[in-house]
Amino acid sequence: MAGLRTISLDAMGGDRGPAVVVPGAALALEGHPDVKFLLAGDRTRIEPYLAEYPQLAERSRIVHTETAIGMQDKPSQAVRHGRGSSMWLAIEAVQKGEADCAVSGGNTGALMAISKLILKTMPGIERPVIAGQWPTIRDNCIVLDLGANIEASAHQLADFALLGAAMARALFHIQRPRVGLLNIGVEEIKGVEEVKQAHAWLKETDLPIDYRGFVEGDQIGQGIVDVVVVEGYAGNIALKTAEGTAKQMAAYVREALTSSLAAKLGALLAERGLRALRDRMDPRRFNGAPFLGLNGIVIKSHGGMDALGFASAIRVGYDMAESDLVAHLAADLEALHGKIAQGKPTEAKQA
Amino acid sequence: MAGLRTISLDAMGGDRGPAVVVPGAALALEGHPDVKFLLAGDRTRIEPYLAEYPQLAERSRIVHTETAIGMQDKPSQAVRHGRGSSMWLAIEAVQKGEADCAVSGGNTGALMAISKLILKTMPGIERPVIAGQWPTIRDNCIVLDLGANIEASAHQLADFALLGAAMARALFHIQRPRVGLLNIGVEEIKGVEEVKQAHAWLKETDLPIDYRGFVEGDQIGQGIVDVVVVEGYAGNIALKTAEGTAKQMAAYVREALTSSLAAKLGALLAERGLRALRDRMDPRRFNGAPFLGLNGIVIKSHGGMDALGFASAIRVGYDMAESDLVAHLAADLEALHGKIAQGKPTEAKQA
Repeated sequence: MAGLRTISLDAMGGDRGPAVVVPGAALALEGHPDVKFLLAGDRTRIEPYLAEYPQLAERSRIVHTETAIGMQDKPSQAVRHGRGSSMWLAIEAVQKGEADCAVSGGNTGALMAISKLILKTMPGIERPVIAGQWPTIRDNCIVLDLGANIEASAHQLADFALLGAAMARALFHIQRPRVGLLNIGVEEIKGVEEVKQAHAWLKETDLPIDYRGFVEGDQIGQGIVDVVVVEGYAGNIALKTAEGTAKQMAAYVREALTSSLAAKLGALLAERGLRALRDRMDPRRFNGAPFLGLNGIVIKSHGGMDALGFASAIRVGYDMAESDLVAHLAADLEALHGKIAQGKPTEAKQA
Repeated sequence: MAGLRTISLDAMGGDRGPAVVVPGAALALEGHPDVKFLLAGDRTRIEPYLAEYPQLAERSRIVHTETAIGMQDKPSQAVRHGRGSSMWLAIEAVQKGEADCAVSGGNTGALMAISKLILKTMPGIERPVIAGQWPTIRDNCIVLDLGANIEASAHQLADFALLGAAMARALFHIQRPRVGLLNIGVEEIKGVEEVKQAHAWLKETDLPIDYRGFVEGDQIGQGIVDVVVVEGYAGNIALKTAEGTAKQMAAYVREALTSSLAAKLGALLAERGLRALRDRMDPRRFNGAPFLGLNGIVIKSHGGMDALGFASAIRVGYDMAESDLVAHLAADLEALHGKIAQGKPTEAKQA
């Protein structure tokens, strides 16, 4: 499936619109010179930026529209009044087969609602899932769901395992990704019923994943699995808590390395190592959260990202399109759902 | 309520029993020379350690027993066969009024089950809550529940706010602690119903707390509230994820500061600042997780802690006993429950 790829970009999405999207596309083009872009948005605002990147301009087509969805618009508003907006057109290009994936820095709620409306979810999937890359002390891993499916059912959690595995295959080129289910280890307490049931299904079903059972919160960063499956409320809290802790630690390190003249001199000597550390934790490197479970690929870029971050999101979309993820996933999900339907005895145990 | 305090210790609890408990008590005694100890456990195993600390020996009484609850025993086993064990006797001393609080490094499930059996929960409280101290860039804050109440109801979450506030008053000496409710900010998605309902109750009810509304995971470490309220599954995952991220960051920093000869020299120069950083994040400083909502004070010490960590847990117990927490809490909870019962219209909205 290698070769020419077209990626549609919501050029008006994010805090800075084309000022970030166009240079971001130019950066992504350096790594993937075969890519073509559709830039959905206001021609008069896009063209000045595009003029600065002749190579990109050559490989881009503007899909003009004067409407855009605001960062504060509610999903219901976006669905009702968003038709023809830059976000809408970017996703519609995927639905029409004119693009292999869409990338937007627009607001998450609107992007999810419009994606679902235009692309529809895959058979058996109720809502798209938000997945993200998580840095570990080894390689990155994938954590999902990050907030779209609050109180996910056992069935949904089992689906997340396959959706995350497909993403791991696309991004990390691992054939049988190691998958773990996030749980808590307080021994006296029965875990959440949904998590237990999903565990039973994943353990008993023959799937194209290497299911490793339960993992705890402190193991995500150890990189012992490639995919961590969790219900959306706890997943979002885990992600935010990790981000907060990383910032807190960075503040402590800064403080430690500026606490005296000797410390400042020390930091100067260790500069190269510290710069590598900063790069390693740079959130721009992990930008690009796919919505999984749709009949098409949509990548959410963080609204506050710069061009480097936006380019990361484009790369995620490229790799996912390249892996033919949607077609493979449809087959895997069908197999899982068939086996779950057969395995009713397991389900009955729960009641 | 100042003055003579007696603290009962499960001397056989934790990975190393009296080898940690006795030196831990000796350390705690340095800060609180007025304290007396009851040491529940095997006399022949406690006395050799006690002989090394004459001042502690003078202020301690051994409550002899030859049975102890194992770190792997199930709560149900512990309740059935644990009568007369060191953990049991330590808690029973609180129930009999012989001690002001109990501290144990024994297994969480057994400790919770036996505490509940002997001390009983306060009126309107179904299960004890596990609370912990969390380092922030300002002062510490308190996070609860850390895993005892999976899928807590709105009513329980509202109780947690008062329980956590009482602990903040005891440990931080803040009269009206700032309390936040952990939630997620993905804008399109309705939050968990229980969280919304608890939010409404806390906002509308006149309580001895400064209720600040919702906080997100990345705000815990910012120290913007003194108490963070969360359901036990997500709370446990948040705690473990933060611990994991802190370790991961520490590993990165170590790597950065040993990556070259210059970096190593730099680390040497910055040694004092880096040592302060290590101290600041030292988990032994945050050891001691109270079970709240019981008619008495029980502190869980991490099973793997050393004497310094165990001394921290004793100090938490001392401060909580000092504040007369149980009596005050009973009054606050009664007021809340009365107001919730009156405010049925709010509850009806949920349905």
